[in-house]
Amino acid sequence: MAAGRKVLTLDSVNPCVKGARLPTLGPLLERASEIQRQLAQSPPLVGAFCSLPQGEEKPFREVIWCHSGDPHAAGQRPITFLRQVAAICAYPELLHADSMPRDAKQRASRILQELHSSSAGAYNMEYVTTAVPQRVARYLERRDGGIRCDPRNIVMCGGITTAIVDFLSLVVNEQDPRRAGVLLPVPGHPLFADAVALAGAIGVQYHLDEEGGWALDVGEIRRVLGQARGHCTPKVLCVINPGYPTGHVLSRRHMQDVLQLAAQERLLLLADEVHQDCVFTPDAPFLSFKRVLCELGPAVSSAVQLISFYSVSKGFAAEGGFRAGFFELVNIDPAIMKRFCSWGMSIYPLILGQVLLDALMEPPLPGEPSCRTFMAALGLEPDFFFCQKLLEATGIVLAPGSTFGQRRGTHHVRMTLLPRVETLRIVLQTIAEFHSQFQQRYS
Amino acid sequence: MAAGRKVLTLDSVNPCVKGARLPTLGPLLERASEIQRQLAQSPPLVGAFCSLPQGEEKPFREVIWCHSGDPHAAGQRPITFLRQVAAICAYPELLHADSMPRDAKQRASRILQELHSSSAGAYNMEYVTTAVPQRVARYLERRDGGIRCDPRNIVMCGGITTAIVDFLSLVVNEQDPRRAGVLLPVPGHPLFADAVALAGAIGVQYHLDEEGGWALDVGEIRRVLGQARGHCTPKVLCVINPGYPTGHVLSRRHMQDVLQLAAQERLLLLADEVHQDCVFTPDAPFLSFKRVLCELGPAVSSAVQLISFYSVSKGFAAEGGFRAGFFELVNIDPAIMKRFCSWGMSIYPLILGQVLLDALMEPPLPGEPSCRTFMAALGLEPDFFFCQKLLEATGIVLAPGSTFGQRRGTHHVRMTLLPRVETLRIVLQTIAEFHSQFQQRYS
Repeated sequence: MAAGRKVLTLDSVNPCVKGARLPTLGPLLERASEIQRQLAQSPPLVGAFCSLPQGEEKPFREVIWCHSGDPHAAGQRPITFLRQVAAICAYPELLHADSMPRDAKQRASRILQELHSSSAGAYNMEYVTTAVPQRVARYLERRDGGIRCDPRNIVMCGGITTAIVDFLSLVVNEQDPRRAGVLLPVPGHPLFADAVALAGAIGVQYHLDEEGGWALDVGEIRRVLGQARGHCTPKVLCVINPGYPTGHVLSRRHMQDVLQLAAQERLLLLADEVHQDCVFTPDAPFLSFKRVLCELGPAVSSAVQLISFYSVSKGFAAEGGFRAGFFELVNIDPAIMKRFCSWGMSIYPLILGQVLLDALMEPPLPGEPSCRTFMAALGLEPDFFFCQKLLEATGIVLAPGSTFGQRRGTHHVRMTLLPRVETLRIVLQTIAEFHSQFQQRYS
Repeated sequence: MAAGRKVLTLDSVNPCVKGARLPTLGPLLERASEIQRQLAQSPPLVGAFCSLPQGEEKPFREVIWCHSGDPHAAGQRPITFLRQVAAICAYPELLHADSMPRDAKQRASRILQELHSSSAGAYNMEYVTTAVPQRVARYLERRDGGIRCDPRNIVMCGGITTAIVDFLSLVVNEQDPRRAGVLLPVPGHPLFADAVALAGAIGVQYHLDEEGGWALDVGEIRRVLGQARGHCTPKVLCVINPGYPTGHVLSRRHMQDVLQLAAQERLLLLADEVHQDCVFTPDAPFLSFKRVLCELGPAVSSAVQLISFYSVSKGFAAEGGFRAGFFELVNIDPAIMKRFCSWGMSIYPLILGQVLLDALMEPPLPGEPSCRTFMAALGLEPDFFFCQKLLEATGIVLAPGSTFGQRRGTHHVRMTLLPRVETLRIVLQTIAEFHSQFQQRYS
């Protein structure tokens, strides 16, 4: 029978899917993998150039991957405590293993009690819809300076991408001849454009202000909004903060403007806040849209519908392979939540991902065995941790800058020059070597 | 501001989502959880009845959950080998743990070499799109009596439900005034009706033949097909085999009829084969649609487009919380596959789920430490395993039925009556107690 008789052909594929923006990186990455394989097969050569099969020569010896936000692939090490808790939950016999620290066992033990038959292989709906959201809510309250968070407004998910399509699908009405519009920042994450196309909505681009360090320009949003109303009904404003791929962190003033605009123009604000733990500039701290919204008067704070999301793929954990995240909903009718959750497509996230996120919400406390490693991994008192490790490895004692006080976000050590010059030479060389290893292991 | 000013309200929700069939179990399960909580709080009482708050009395002491296919929640134990491999991949320090068997370490070690930086927290696209599909393909070739399986036709996914919506979305053309029709069995899994609604297609029900043990009636499919053509374009025929929730296993003859029909009527066959490892009737073995299709002449075998899927949530592993499965595509243009995979919504499954599925595709070999436990867990030679454990625990030696030969799917032990009556009494009581513990642990 001819191929034309087939149901699913390249020609017949749903135009919405065809229209979704494809990641243009694909061919580049395939080529890079090919070069990497070829380099691995080539005999080592002396000199700057090496031979490739097919007559190609490259002025490098290895492929260096600097394109993607996949920290573990780039060599970042996982946080030991999180992985220990996950491993114990995968194989609870490890509760009796000497190699596991007490606090990881205690945490895993508590979680296992919340899992059906202590199994991460059960669907565990209560754990996902009740237990984890409670911990997330407490975490967000600490983050937002005590602003109340109701666990019923927290929706856990297994990876953000699919859930965004699901959420967008809620606001799209395919029977409406005027299609829903979603405002998207440029530059921004390609997944948003994909998700908008897949949900059957129309993407409306607004440009970030490159001269202003990629700041968000509310005037630009108003301008494209006016144009878009000619061909669609703008319903959702998507903002990425901290910016991706720009790194720009919105100021409170900018966020207030965005929220005022959302209230006036009746836009649901979809806030991608997944890089909230990656802000290292003390003069521009991360503020959540929820927090800034709650600080505004009730006319705005009760009107703006906000969906913010968080992912363990980014930040300290950077565990993309664990597929875990959550959405916080503000000013959205719980009945919709319920409908959404029983609707069935995103309700079963991976349990071990949830376990990992769960453990991340309540880091080990001071005095618990995993606290120091965790703190170092979190960037807390890293200079103290560095000095401790240096001492254990080399016998050299330095003084951590944190014991003297230092500007937040900076780290120092104090080293006296009292030893003899011969000794100092060895000390400096040893510290340099150790520092390099330390960076490799913990950064 | 009034609620009517909000973007997302119960009234405004996308009618496709509203129209999706909701799981009717919801309220029942909520009520059951409530009763369970109340029973847990009630003081233990003598007698058949116990008090509940709110003046309720129940003629039972505990809620017994028999509604759902969540084997671990119901007490089924995970397969140790799979969990050991997953735990080691979560926390590779366990490669040095004495408590882990050699073969689990070797398997995990091989997988860790295939993961980016040995981290299950990286996205690991090559592992998911190349390494695991190769093992799956070999597994399917063994299952299908050697019929060739190309790994490029295997698409890994993190849970079947989301992926089904994605696949259905491919064949739906929203710009076509005649909507796509999807034929669905009744009774069948509610997720199909949800997925069809969400993808914007129209569900066309065909009824299974209850009098024929829930067999599939091709005449019934032809009948509804004729009716459906009045209001939609039927494109997909969904068949669940082994049947859910019916348990019916299709015969080769029925499958051939279905495939002939799919060829004649130009229907893509979506085959839910997730319960393929749950067939215990020797007279009605499971056959895959792929296998039966390949046995038919080229006019049919090259024409029918088939998507079959498999899940670790069912069968031996029954690890629903690990969210892992795969699709096998037959007669579908690889370019669509590529587009689908780069399309972005389902491409990042949970890595530890993939690890578990990966380990399941190649069970431990004879002679490896985990082989015996795994074989028992797989239902292979369970009578031998029973006798071995009985001996170790009680000193009683029985002869496994498998050493005498027995009908496939049945299991026996031989016990002689030579001991004295007093001893036999103790032996029988001990065996009964042990059998109960054994069932609890391994069934």
